[in-house]
Formats: sequence, C-alpha cells, structure tokens
Amino acid sequence: MGKKQKKDRKRAHESARHGIRLGIDLGGTKILAGVVDDQGHILGSAKRKTRAERGVDEVIARVVKTAQDAVAASKLDLRTIKAIGIGAPGVADYRTGVIEFAPNLNNWVNVPLGPRLEKELGMPVIVENDVNAGTYGEATVGAAAGYRSVVGIFPGTGIGGGILFDGTLLRGAHNGAGEIGHMVVLIDGPRCGCGRRGCIEALASRTAIERDILGELRGGRTSMIVDLIDQDDPQITSGTLASALEAHDPLVTDVIERAAYHLGVFTASLINALDPECIVYGGGLIEACGEAMLPIIRETTYRYLIRPIEPEKLPILPAALGDHAVLLGAAMLAGEEMVAQS
Amino acid sequence: MGKKQKKDRKRAHESARHGIRLGIDLGGTKILAGVVDDQGHILGSAKRKTRAERGVDEVIARVVKTAQDAVAASKLDLRTIKAIGIGAPGVADYRTGVIEFAPNLNNWVNVPLGPRLEKELGMPVIVENDVNAGTYGEATVGAAAGYRSVVGIFPGTGIGGGILFDGTLLRGAHNGAGEIGHMVVLIDGPRCGCGRRGCIEALASRTAIERDILGELRGGRTSMIVDLIDQDDPQITSGTLASALEAHDPLVTDVIERAAYHLGVFTASLINALDPECIVYGGGLIEACGEAMLPIIRETTYRYLIRPIEPEKLPILPAALGDHAVLLGAAMLAGEEMVAQS
Repeated sequence: MGKKQKKDRKRAHESARHGIRLGIDLGGTKILAGVVDDQGHILGSAKRKTRAERGVDEVIARVVKTAQDAVAASKLDLRTIKAIGIGAPGVADYRTGVIEFAPNLNNWVNVPLGPRLEKELGMPVIVENDVNAGTYGEATVGAAAGYRSVVGIFPGTGIGGGILFDGTLLRGAHNGAGEIGHMVVLIDGPRCGCGRRGCIEALASRTAIERDILGELRGGRTSMIVDLIDQDDPQITSGTLASALEAHDPLVTDVIERAAYHLGVFTASLINALDPECIVYGGGLIEACGEAMLPIIRETTYRYLIRPIEPEKLPILPAALGDHAVLLGAAMLAGEEMVAQS
Repeated sequence: MGKKQKKDRKRAHESARHGIRLGIDLGGTKILAGVVDDQGHILGSAKRKTRAERGVDEVIARVVKTAQDAVAASKLDLRTIKAIGIGAPGVADYRTGVIEFAPNLNNWVNVPLGPRLEKELGMPVIVENDVNAGTYGEATVGAAAGYRSVVGIFPGTGIGGGILFDGTLLRGAHNGAGEIGHMVVLIDGPRCGCGRRGCIEALASRTAIERDILGELRGGRTSMIVDLIDQDDPQITSGTLASALEAHDPLVTDVIERAAYHLGVFTASLINALDPECIVYGGGLIEACGEAMLPIIRETTYRYLIRPIEPEKLPILPAALGDHAVLLGAAMLAGEEMVAQS
C-alpha cells in the first residue's frame, strides 16, 4: 500500500469512527429510532407502534418511516448517516441480517430484515438481538463504558442477557448466545414459560414474582397489593411492585428478596464460569425495584464466588441507559461495523 | 518491512509452528512430561511423583528433572525444544507465569513457576490452569480438533471445565474463568466441597455419587457395591462404579443416572448461555462410566435447550486424550505462544 493509499484509508477509518449513525430498537409493541453520534449522544429520535399483527411488510415500512422521522428530528440529511444498527427481539444472524425467529414479532421466521432495510434506506444495516444490543450499549456508552468483558443481565417479563469478551459481543455458533434466562438454577423447580423447569427466569423474572405473590394471596396471605391490582385481571407491573416495596409490604418484600437472592446465586455462577470484568443489571424489574434488589444480589453474589474477588474489582452495576440501551447499542454496533469495513 | 525481513519473519513463524515443544502436567500426585511435535504426537515422555508436601523448591526441581528425562526419552537435544507449556491445578496467571493459588500443591500461593522454570531450562515457559490446558488439548489435537468454540466438562473427584471462543482459551479478567463445577444448579441443594450449596460438583461429581450411594446404604438399601468397597474406609472409585454398572446394580445405576441427568440439564444451561460449536466430556468419572452416562447427558441436554439444535450441529463428544490431555494442551499452548512471539 502506497503512502497516499494509507492516508486515504486512515481518513476513511476516522470518518467512519466519527460518523453519524442511526440506531433502531424494534420491539414487540413499539419502534424507537435515534440519530446518534460516536459518543452516544442522541441528536434526534422518533417513535411509532410496531403493529406486528399487520405482518412483515407493514412492520418494515413502519421501521423505515420511524428512521426517516428520527433523521428529520435531528435536522440532518439522510446522506449524513453512514450506517444503521437495529436491535430486534429473537434470533438474529448478524452476518446475514436475517431474523431467524422472533415470536414477539408475530412469529417472524427467516425475515431478511437487514437486506430489506439496506435496499429501502441505501446504506449498511447491522441486525442484532435486542438484549445483545442493549448489553453492547451499556458496555460502550452506558454503565460499563470502559470495561471490555461484561455480562448484562436484564430481568423483566423474562430474563435476557448479553455477553462481551474483549470488547466483542458473543454471538454464538448458532446465533443463540446470551439466553441466560434459561440457565437452570433449581433442577425440577417451578415451570418456566419455555416449558422446562427451574430456569432462573422461572424464579426471578417479574412473571415469576407475580406468580409467587398471587399464589401466596390464594393461600390466604394478605398484602396491600390486592388494592393495587385489578382482581379480574390480576397483573402485577414492576411499578406496582415498587409501590408495595416502598410501603414495606411484607409479602411483596419477601418475594422480591427471595428473587434477588436467586439472582445473586445465579450471578455468582456466571462469574465462576466466565470471570468478566463487571456485571450490568438492567431491565424493567431492576429499573423499578433495583434499590431493594441490588444490595441483596450483590451480597449473595460475592458470597457465592468460588474465589473471593473484591467488589471494586468486579462491580455489579445498575444499567444507565434505560429505554435507550438497545437503540444506542445498535448504533454503536453500526459504528464498529463502519470502521471494520472502511 | 523489506522483502528480506518479511521472508525471515515468515520463516521464523513457520519454524515456530513446526517446532518441537515440551508439555508438562503438574498434578497434585504426579508430574507427567512429554516432548511433543506440532501434530500432538508424543516423541518421548517421563513421569515422577510430585511430593508436594516437600515444598516449592523440591517440586520445581522434580519438574525440571522430569522434563529432562522426557527429552532424553525422545532422543532429542534440549536445544531442539523451542518452548515449554505446563498445566497446574489452581489459579494460574498465564501472562506472568505465576501460580496464584493451588490448594492441591500443598497450598502454593503466588509461586512464580513460569519464571523459575525459564531460568532453569533456558526457554519460554507458558503456565496454564490444568483443566484449561486439557480443554485446549482436546480442542486442538483431541476429540474436538477442528472446532473453534468449545466447552470442556470434566467430572471426576470434582468437576472442572474450560471454555474456548474462536480458538482462544477464556482466561477471565481475574484468571478465574472455567470454574464451571461451582455453577449452582440446585439452589439450597446439597453441600459442596467449596462450602456452598447446590453446585453441579455437589450433584454429579464422583464425590457426590459416592455420598449418595453411601447415604442410601446407610438408609438400608442394598447393593453389590458393599462387597467391592472397604467397609472401614468406604471410598468408591470410578472403576468400582463402572464394575457395579456393568453388573446392573440397581442402586449404583439409579445414582449414576440421576447424576447424568443433572449433568445434562447443566450442559443445556451452558449451551443456552454460550452457544458453542461442541461440548467435550472427559474426566475420570466419564472415562469409567461414560458409556452409561453420555447417552443420558445427551438426551437431557438436547431436551433442555431453549432453541432446538440438531445434535450433529452441536455434538457432545467424549474426550479422546485421556491422561495426556493436560500435557498435550500445555504443549500446544506453548506452540501457539512461539508463533505469536516469532
């Protein structure tokens, strides 16, 4: 390579690294798009319902519109954008941009989301599993910025996760890495949404907590939470749990503390196997109830490590990006891809 | 870099890759050394007792002697050897060559094993945790040769493990990766040797199986195994278990099959999180009882995967290197290091 070529190549690299990119969070109920700079600042954003029930074409058209709205909100030109990253629920092949399987998008199977968006929007599109993207966001411009080996744990309706080694997302040999919610921590334990038994998701997700609270109520235990929920359709949101915790409701406190203990044992197991630099805890349940749960998760985790590690050398951090984690992670992944290809 | 320099460098690389190296398995009871070529053939080997109770200096002197004996057995000159790899039980810092902690070597703490051997033997020495080295051996010249992402699971007295991603051993941020034996699969379950509860090691190691069989015998159940063990010091070796299995002893069969089921659920958990290309099962228990255990481990694993994967796309393989896995893995690691440094 000649001197001029080298210089050109270096310039292309730098322009890519500093480029403006678009991040998209394609969720089961809503689409969130944002124009993002290389520092993770959102320069403009837009939102739209997903309407997954209307089918693949409609969803892709809505993603395109939301992307265009975000660009308009940023007051930039679409041609300023160098690449797009999109996080989607389900199994994503980041090499081909195909969503192999997405139950939460009205059962998408083998949808070439990346190629179709590239055609519509005229630029490279990186497709990633949403929780992987969220973990990548936290590890680059969020709570774990600066750490290179990170495990993200996201308890909400289910429990999702993502794993980074040496700055790179672990995708797995069959695009399936990071399904930590279905690691079994109580063999033959309670039934999980996946049909098996004893997964951590069946013990410490919001759904599991709801099941345990409703079970205790049916068994005759009392709680202020009965006044907070609809008796005909007794769903317990993370916000409701937080209210009951704040009021020191004994039943809700018991169940939440047990879930946090289970998460702590589980976290220690992951550390014993993977020995990362830090753990990030996010997701709806932690956002609402983290103040009560994280101290128990931390105390249990450090107690269950096979080899003692000082907490400051392996911190357990609350996520920092909230609802923007997937969008920002997808945008940062697009940025990495721009650099790799430049 | 000029043409000549490039050529020289290429030659150095190739000579390194094809170089003869020495692999050492430093165990709690014995030292095993072998001169190994780049294909994993052992050209000469030697063996000696460790005598860990005599202290660090004596053990290191014995390692040096065993290494020299192996070279003599290979009929090669020590100067032919380009590098040494050594696997040791405990926490090894592969960057510095220091054994941070090794309970099985009479409680070594911060022993600079690598630097001391380099001084004695006059060549680069790579130090690695023994199970990591064994996994690396299986992944390069053993059962999983050709696979780049491998999880090794080794049930014996305890349960050790090793993890490779993209051809590289996962060492962890605190040199602690791979302690999969202390992942909890039954919260608040049976007490583990580590002092905690419900680790897979407390459910499916030879020690756990021994505990369960002796417990059932004390509870009044009968078994032919009482004739095979010393009533005053009732230890049950893996070989004894194999004999009882072969004779279709109902108690031993029950306990072994339950352990295999637990290992299967555990294996699925690891796959759900890490999605490797293949799993390798080794260790004393599997070597003796694998024929009975592996079919149950496999059946349970594939049933517990969150996303179905065809067995041929994620095989569960019995280890192929037996007692030579650590020695060969250490030798192959030394070879990699030679290439990296050339």
